[in-house]
Amino acid sequence: MKIRVIVPVLYSDELVGKAHEEYRACASGGVDVSAVCVANGTRSIECEFDAVLAQPEVVRLVRQAEKDGVDACTIACFGDPGAAAAKECVSIPVVGEGEAAMLYAGLLGTKVSVVITQRGIFPLVERIARSAGMDRRLASIRAVDTSVLDFSLASLPRAIDEAVAAVREDGADVIVMGCTGTGMDMARTIEAALEERLGVFVPVIDPTKVAMKIAESLAAMRLSHSKIAYPTPADSRREYRY
Amino acid sequence: MKIRVIVPVLYSDELVGKAHEEYRACASGGVDVSAVCVANGTRSIECEFDAVLAQPEVVRLVRQAEKDGVDACTIACFGDPGAAAAKECVSIPVVGEGEAAMLYAGLLGTKVSVVITQRGIFPLVERIARSAGMDRRLASIRAVDTSVLDFSLASLPRAIDEAVAAVREDGADVIVMGCTGTGMDMARTIEAALEERLGVFVPVIDPTKVAMKIAESLAAMRLSHSKIAYPTPADSRREYRY
Amino acid sequence: MKIRVIVPVLYSDELVGKAHEEYRACASGGVDVSAVCVANGTRSIECEFDAVLAQPEVVRLVRQAEKDGVDACTIACFGDPGAAAAKECVSIPVVGEGEAAMLYAGLLGTKVSVVITQRGIFPLVERIARSAGMDRRLASIRAVDTSVLDFSLASLPRAIDEAVAAVREDGADVIVMGCTGTGMDMARTIEAALEERLGVFVPVIDPTKVAMKIAESLAAMRLSHSKIAYPTPADSRREYRY
Amino acid sequence: MKIRVIVPVLYSDELVGKAHEEYRACASGGVDVSAVCVANGTRSIECEFDAVLAQPEVVRLVRQAEKDGVDACTIACFGDPGAAAAKECVSIPVVGEGEAAMLYAGLLGTKVSVVITQRGIFPLVERIARSAGMDRRLASIRAVDTSVLDFSLASLPRAIDEAVAAVREDGADVIVMGCTGTGMDMARTIEAALEERLGVFVPVIDPTKVAMKIAESLAAMRLSHSKIAYPTPADSRREYRY
Amino acid sequence: MKIRVIVPVLYSDELVGKAHEEYRACASGGVDVSAVCVANGTRSIECEFDAVLAQPEVVRLVRQAEKDGVDACTIACFGDPGAAAAKECVSIPVVGEGEAAMLYAGLLGTKVSVVITQRGIFPLVERIARSAGMDRRLASIRAVDTSVLDFSLASLPRAIDEAVAAVREDGADVIVMGCTGTGMDMARTIEAALEERLGVFVPVIDPTKVAMKIAESLAAMRLSHSKIAYPTPADSRREYRY
Amino acid sequence: MKIRVIVPVLYSDELVGKAHEEYRACASGGVDVSAVCVANGTRSIECEFDAVLAQPEVVRLVRQAEKDGVDACTIACFGDPGAAAAKECVSIPVVGEGEAAMLYAGLLGTKVSVVITQRGIFPLVERIARSAGMDRRLASIRAVDTSVLDFSLASLPRAIDEAVAAVREDGADVIVMGCTGTGMDMARTIEAALEERLGVFVPVIDPTKVAMKIAESLAAMRLSHSKIAYPTPADSRREYRY
Repeated sequence: MKIRVIVPVLYSDELVGKAHEEYRACASGGVDVSAVCVANGTRSIECEFDAVLAQPEVVRLVRQAEKDGVDACTIACFGDPGAAAAKECVSIPVVGEGEAAMLYAGLLGTKVSVVITQRGIFPLVERIARSAGMDRRLASIRAVDTSVLDFSLASLPRAIDEAVAAVREDGADVIVMGCTGTGMDMARTIEAALEERLGVFVPVIDPTKVAMKIAESLAAMRLSHSKIAYPTPADSRREYRY
Repeated sequence: MKIRVIVPVLYSDELVGKAHEEYRACASGGVDVSAVCVANGTRSIECEFDAVLAQPEVVRLVRQAEKDGVDACTIACFGDPGAAAAKECVSIPVVGEGEAAMLYAGLLGTKVSVVITQRGIFPLVERIARSAGMDRRLASIRAVDTSVLDFSLASLPRAIDEAVAAVREDGADVIVMGCTGTGMDMARTIEAALEERLGVFVPVIDPTKVAMKIAESLAAMRLSHSKIAYPTPADSRREYRY
Repeated sequence: MKIRVIVPVLYSDELVGKAHEEYRACASGGVDVSAVCVANGTRSIECEFDAVLAQPEVVRLVRQAEKDGVDACTIACFGDPGAAAAKECVSIPVVGEGEAAMLYAGLLGTKVSVVITQRGIFPLVERIARSAGMDRRLASIRAVDTSVLDFSLASLPRAIDEAVAAVREDGADVIVMGCTGTGMDMARTIEAALEERLGVFVPVIDPTKVAMKIAESLAAMRLSHSKIAYPTPADSRREYRY
Repeated sequence: MKIRVIVPVLYSDELVGKAHEEYRACASGGVDVSAVCVANGTRSIECEFDAVLAQPEVVRLVRQAEKDGVDACTIACFGDPGAAAAKECVSIPVVGEGEAAMLYAGLLGTKVSVVITQRGIFPLVERIARSAGMDRRLASIRAVDTSVLDFSLASLPRAIDEAVAAVREDGADVIVMGCTGTGMDMARTIEAALEERLGVFVPVIDPTKVAMKIAESLAAMRLSHSKIAYPTPADSRREYRY
Repeated sequence: MKIRVIVPVLYSDELVGKAHEEYRACASGGVDVSAVCVANGTRSIECEFDAVLAQPEVVRLVRQAEKDGVDACTIACFGDPGAAAAKECVSIPVVGEGEAAMLYAGLLGTKVSVVITQRGIFPLVERIARSAGMDRRLASIRAVDTSVLDFSLASLPRAIDEAVAAVREDGADVIVMGCTGTGMDMARTIEAALEERLGVFVPVIDPTKVAMKIAESLAAMRLSHSKIAYPTPADSRREYRY
Repeated sequence: MKIRVIVPVLYSDELVGKAHEEYRACASGGVDVSAVCVANGTRSIECEFDAVLAQPEVVRLVRQAEKDGVDACTIACFGDPGAAAAKECVSIPVVGEGEAAMLYAGLLGTKVSVVITQRGIFPLVERIARSAGMDRRLASIRAVDTSVLDFSLASLPRAIDEAVAAVREDGADVIVMGCTGTGMDMARTIEAALEERLGVFVPVIDPTKVAMKIAESLAAMRLSHSKIAYPTPADSRREYRY
């Protein structure tokens, strides 16, 4: 089974190296994982504009993946940029990290809080929650107040504080890390810290991992998205320029 | 007052000629209306993929409009492609036709049906309705079963039939034309036909007109969108490539 | 174009003088604005009972406006008293300030807070938000804790504090002034204060202004409410006594 | 225990005679039931305008009831005209027939259909359903297509047909009679007819009865509505004229 | 009229003695009230597991009640354990305390807070609120932080503090006591304390009382639940073992 | 990895034989799948009562599975009987087929229809949809009109007809088989038939398979449900009898 991770930000050697390692760690044994980056866009996705720039590239890369015989793709960003359009253009499963994470949150708890880098991304998170049917169960969104690029191990204490506050003050019983950094097993670390500070197990969901697992499962079941919901763009008279 | 209409499809002389005429007819006296088309994209927008292709261009054109001293922009497409991203990038008001039409439908009736060209656009219409808070009041979406490019006066009888059925069978009391063709006053014609066939006045909303009116009103009140909801993309370290 | 503002409180020279001035300032050049008050009712509307007393009068005044050849009416109260009944009785557009303000809030932001005079009005504001489809996006309602009649420039610092708290504590990104006083441009002043204190632009919506703009736009488009949603009361056998 | 039924339509000897008989039949033994009509208004309530005319009178009559030492009031109309305002003005319980019927429907089934006289009342029924939290469980509203005044035993077959269709076509499993006529036990008759035609018991709710039972129960428990939700109109400076 | 209270916890002499007294105090004069306990289960219901253990017993006891000629049953627990299944198995009305309390809360206020013993029951309360259509009006759930078995007069000051905080901080205007202890008129005491501390009347709902009143009313009207919504389990081939 | 399937119906050699085969076919290579049946309950689950009977047994079996060192359980019934209570009692992941199927439906389409055996199960399906946040996206529920025990290959043509009607008449774009029979790959067969009759790919979800895949993924990620949402029943004073 081949899974390709579409990383919707600009290539850097460091990023792709770490990412590869991380994605492979998520996948089951025997799964062939590859990762690609966009040629146009930004170094991180922190608002709708960043997503808009990445989307045509995401679609192009998903189409290429299908041509390469890949079995399923994930889009490595909580905002799911280009996911709906990509589903229109291919038959193989495409899984956004945001939709994947919200789905698992719904399964593991009753009230979810999303911990994210900055307040500017809140509207985007709310849109993801709403389209996953989780808006009524969204306890809060909390920001670590750093940029995606500066998000690192140094952000960990603040992320833990926000997750603890989400449980204590906002009524959350499951946490989704809207940004997990790269090359770290941050979700697991926060989960352990929560258990220690709260005295009770609260799952912390890593979108990268659950997207990978859903992609594997769809490929294994040979199940994919509806072509009524995501119709193939078919009209050749429309003169695509792109 | 200057209003610019961003037409998110590829330029053709015929399109722009008709469009100009139509947009000017919508505007109040003394308003300077201009229209521009995208350089990349498709000849019509009929799915998420088409929207994705147009969006970077829409943002570029809205930014240009602000530099040109334009007071407000409308996006001439029911799917509001690029509207959220464009609001992030500028301070002048940006009004999508879809959000504008749904808002006026909520004001004029209690249950709305959207008449659109094809079933493939239904999910997109549902998303627009949901983000406008009108999903609970959406009576139905009905398709004329033609492509946007073939939508013309010849489609009128079918559009009227669908609007009548929306009222009689689906419980609609206000109609939104998700596609109005270009250079025709189709909404008004359907409104008259509905009154004749149903014996009662049912408003038929033309998204182009109401978007223009909202844009004018925002410019007149010097009111614009929230910079918390639509934060300016500010991080220069992120190396935009586009 | 003639617009009439229905002021659903008892006449006083001072009120009508200030109101006239304010409503004219809202309207576009060339629009003929008139204002009328109710003969029965109260000096302010602060609960459902006050609204109930004003409503028959509001309907009577809207009917008179239609007979006088007026093109559209606004109802100058956030609670929209009598708006639905008035729409039944006439064909010209009738715009409530509450519904107008909530719809523009939806256009300009993602989470709205309404700043109002007293807690007693909260249920009424919630009803307005729900019927505008904005209940899921209502961040909070906050009270300045003064009566409508005492609401004045002296209330401004408290109103600003509440608006700031709505943004900082409740997650609002757009503010609606549920009461704006009369003869002051309070919304604009609060908007400026918010920008100074928060360092970011947050729109503050003045219901009087947006209702006027929507009324103008409907009159200009010759568009009005659905006669299925708001059916004309027709049965002469029912012996109206009023 | 004294219960007063506020009949929000104009007095006629025939109406009050029948009504008295009916309301007494609903009440428990030993309850002293009285009924009063409005002095201004219409002979039936079929739209928002009719409700608006009746409301000031309803409030006046509820206040009088409290002065007369009555323990609870019901408002004998599915639209609950004046219910919220009346709750503000008194401390004794006030129960609208619409809210009462929708709440009992929620208790007895999962999907409710309301059978009503005319389509013009649909928006009013939807508002009642929404404020009772039953909008998501409203299977349909169906009209017998007669006026309230002509609604009589002759309307019974049509009402039964609509109730049967609500179950078979719309998925309803409980029926609310939005109009029950006067002096007839219509709900019970329809219930029996449904059981015969469908082969299964489907409850048919008579709003008059359930409102009476809720009023009795509140009086018995000495429980009444919240004075935060329905604050007493207190400001004497406001110069009530009515 | 005979009403039976199904107490879904294990029998103790003390419990049943107090309970009997309390249930009789709730009932109208002339109503014959009996109470029974489960033979399997737990001494209190504080989570889904406790409910699961009690449910088969609850159904057995409700069936027995119908055979004994009882007119209606209530289930004496806020979680309504076994209510839906019991409705399937009998024709007499069955009323859960949770659904009854939420329904009366909706009638008496606009925003409800539920005061309960422990946080572990929150998800269960949310489910009750959702199925009663009250989730959008749930201001908060607050815990007294004691177990059901330890809940007693000594818990009263804490319960009052939580109710006051629900009004002041969470916006509640009506309180539901999710646990009322046994043999005390706690709701009434808290109501009086709230009025003293807040200076305004806030109803405090005792689920035991309102369930009894609804049961009486259904029995009096000879009205029961829908057999489409709660179909009788009929297939004899299925070999029930229990 | 060990996965145990909890089959909440009474044991029969034929059932368990077929089931084993089917569950193993769902699982990934190397996963050790076992299946167990309840000792009390019914031969099929077709209403809430059947679920109530099975639930204590389901919890007992899930607890046993944890003691046996199993890594995750699935509950082999669309109604998820006992899932919440079982999650309280153990730390290993427990996945209900209903919640699993609804979540995957949300991922693969926008509007889901559930095809089920009988109308009596509709309320149960609606509850599952609501708790998965999919109620707003539920296009319809359709019944094949057979009992679970008679559901077999002979039911296939009728199931296909209902699925086709769900797409054509109800607007569904993804189908969930609420009952799949045992030992047949019915979902896949219906999917193929839909593609042939509708000319477009519509995914048909087999709850058994997706529950297995989610269980595997949770076990692989060592992720489980929240102990705040599903608190361990801890109070030893409560004297469990069961």
